Amino acid sequence: MFDPNLVDLTVLRKRAYNLRWATVPEGVIPLTAADPDTPCAPEIAGAIARFAQDRYFCYGPPDGLPEFRESLACYYQTKRRIPASPSWIFPVDSAAFGIYLTCKAFLSPGDEAILFDPVDFLFGYSIGAAGAKPVPYALPAGEELDIRRMEALITPRTKLICLCNPLNPTGKVFTEKELLLIGGLACKHDLLILSDEIWSDIVFSPHVYTSIASLNDDIRNRTVTITGFSKSYGLAGLRIGAVMASDRARYQRLFDASLHNTTIHGSNLIGQVAATTAICACEGWLKEFVRHLQEMRDLCVHRLNAIDGFSCVPPEGCYVAFADISGTRLTSREMQELLLTKARVAVVPGLPEWFGDGADGYIRLSFATTREILTDALDRIKNTIQQL
Amino acid sequence: MFDPNLVDLTVLRKRAYNLRWATVPEGVIPLTAADPDTPCAPEIAGAIARFAQDRYFCYGPPDGLPEFRESLACYYQTKRRIPASPSWIFPVDSAAFGIYLTCKAFLSPGDEAILFDPVDFLFGYSIGAAGAKPVPYALPAGEELDIRRMEALITPRTKLICLCNPLNPTGKVFTEKELLLIGGLACKHDLLILSDEIWSDIVFSPHVYTSIASLNDDIRNRTVTITGFSKSYGLAGLRIGAVMASDRARYQRLFDASLHNTTIHGSNLIGQVAATTAICACEGWLKEFVRHLQEMRDLCVHRLNAIDGFSCVPPEGCYVAFADISGTRLTSREMQELLLTKARVAVVPGLPEWFGDGADGYIRLSFATTREILTDALDRIKNTIQQL
Repeated sequence: MFDPNLVDLTVLRKRAYNLRWATVPEGVIPLTAADPDTPCAPEIAGAIARFAQDRYFCYGPPDGLPEFRESLACYYQTKRRIPASPSWIFPVDSAAFGIYLTCKAFLSPGDEAILFDPVDFLFGYSIGAAGAKPVPYALPAGEELDIRRMEALITPRTKLICLCNPLNPTGKVFTEKELLLIGGLACKHDLLILSDEIWSDIVFSPHVYTSIASLNDDIRNRTVTITGFSKSYGLAGLRIGAVMASDRARYQRLFDASLHNTTIHGSNLIGQVAATTAICACEGWLKEFVRHLQEMRDLCVHRLNAIDGFSCVPPEGCYVAFADISGTRLTSREMQELLLTKARVAVVPGLPEWFGDGADGYIRLSFATTREILTDALDRIKNTIQQL
Repeated sequence: MFDPNLVDLTVLRKRAYNLRWATVPEGVIPLTAADPDTPCAPEIAGAIARFAQDRYFCYGPPDGLPEFRESLACYYQTKRRIPASPSWIFPVDSAAFGIYLTCKAFLSPGDEAILFDPVDFLFGYSIGAAGAKPVPYALPAGEELDIRRMEALITPRTKLICLCNPLNPTGKVFTEKELLLIGGLACKHDLLILSDEIWSDIVFSPHVYTSIASLNDDIRNRTVTITGFSKSYGLAGLRIGAVMASDRARYQRLFDASLHNTTIHGSNLIGQVAATTAICACEGWLKEFVRHLQEMRDLCVHRLNAIDGFSCVPPEGCYVAFADISGTRLTSREMQELLLTKARVAVVPGLPEWFGDGADGYIRLSFATTREILTDALDRIKNTIQQL
């Protein structure tokens, strides 16, 4: 089971890259990349060791191991109420590649695609890489969706709405009502929906998760659903995600664009084994992990709001807090540097190149760690800001 | 150590895809994809299990684990006599992606690139995907390089020579003299060299392997060296290869084109751990594996040449036999179908879309299996052809 106090800093200092323990100076606490400090479910480690024991790492199927596709279909059917078929799902290198792939497969130069602001830079990057134009829809932390404002962004060139639900970095979990509005808009204007659901397991009570593809057939038929296993299960380094289409034709277009059939790209077997185990054998572990994260969310938001000049809307999902620090009169970059040098805490600054213009004046902090480490980091931040 | 008789067909029937045991009907022997039937080195399985035991699969560094880069540099320095630097090497999803990436990074629409014919389809595919034109240089099995004929293919638009050494499917291992001629040509016409060395460990005595980048500074400075771990160590399903540039600027161009920095692509940690172990701890295993393969090569070529209408030049490297079957008056495709239905042996037909026009009238057979399975397959092929 998930143990909220278990962290092995010796291993993390060797293995946690992407702005985390292995990359920060000794003594700095990284609350940067959304990657948990706690170890993964023991069932996953066990499954990998058993797979390795056979000493066969042959070429896998380009469209994924049958058990992976079946477990994903089962997950979507039972947990997300989507009438999913294993034939329309395939594993990919990461959810990030899934987003990139969907843009590559369905966008052409001159097309436009709507994305949230703030949101992870990958959406804008992927839209741009396909030669299309990213059209940001501003959705600040704590605000409800205004569908008329979104509709006003649609032009004859609009092809795609990029949904990120829960929304990184603000932690918004879209309600069924909001999703029906977005889905309705897509139907009305004949748009494709990319639904990035990598954070969908990390949702805090009383909020509940709804997949947009579960709402009705019309919406599902125009949705590509993407997920990954780095957030819920801490498997970022295994590089494993999944893409699901709603019909044969879209599946084929995504699969062709993936280059899996040429062996240029493909999904490694260990990632697929780990993900299959995560879905089939780690439900209890995940429940405990989310329970712990909800406590850390409460602690983190409470402590941040007690700091002068800081303001943080409680995230409904994701394990990041997105704090408005404009009350301190420091920029995001200045705050990041101050916290790194004085508080010895690393955070992610709300830079436009990482999250869009709407992140200006914010910092992002991951709270996927132990109470002890999080408390220490927040104490340090508070003390540093008090001395301003 | 490598055990030449160890094959677990129960596992292979579940795991060996890409036209192999998991995809052929019961009773068919697949000599198709170049993927060994024997299990991998136990050291590799052990290293994966130990890594998994820590239960941390955090984001790795986009440019690869330090131990991976250092072990590769050490390998190139000591085994290939290339003054390699860890800073110019990074892990990729596969050698196939390495080839694709090099074409993407250095070719533009309208450019031309020289490739061998026959050769794996990936070269032509990757050149074409970059918008450039593949210019085939015919090099049939058993022939020496004719550098004047290659030079005659060069135009002002030529940018790249794609070297595949040893050459799949003919098994040619280029001599130092031949490589000096190719390198000299590249220097004379200011061309880049892509050297695919994924087969470089599988070379049969008395032939010796030479890396083109080891010849001199002028040649090395224009070479991108690519390798992978599927052929020497049976790790295709882990999806791990490496790309090495000869300077900072080319490294950066390759790395940027890889999209590793965005997390859209990246190399999984388990693949890097397995490859590092392969290089650092499996030299004895590899030596035994190659010794066994040389016996299988001799057996396979001898038996193929005893079949009416078949003719096979002994491969100098690679564990595939490329047999000229034109004496049977069957096409490659007809022969493949005959062998599949009557002999119950799956082989790869020499189709233009897989190996280029020069493969016409050939079939390719992998001999990376046990003596028992190989003998059985060759008996079946012989009996089937005798009844024609």
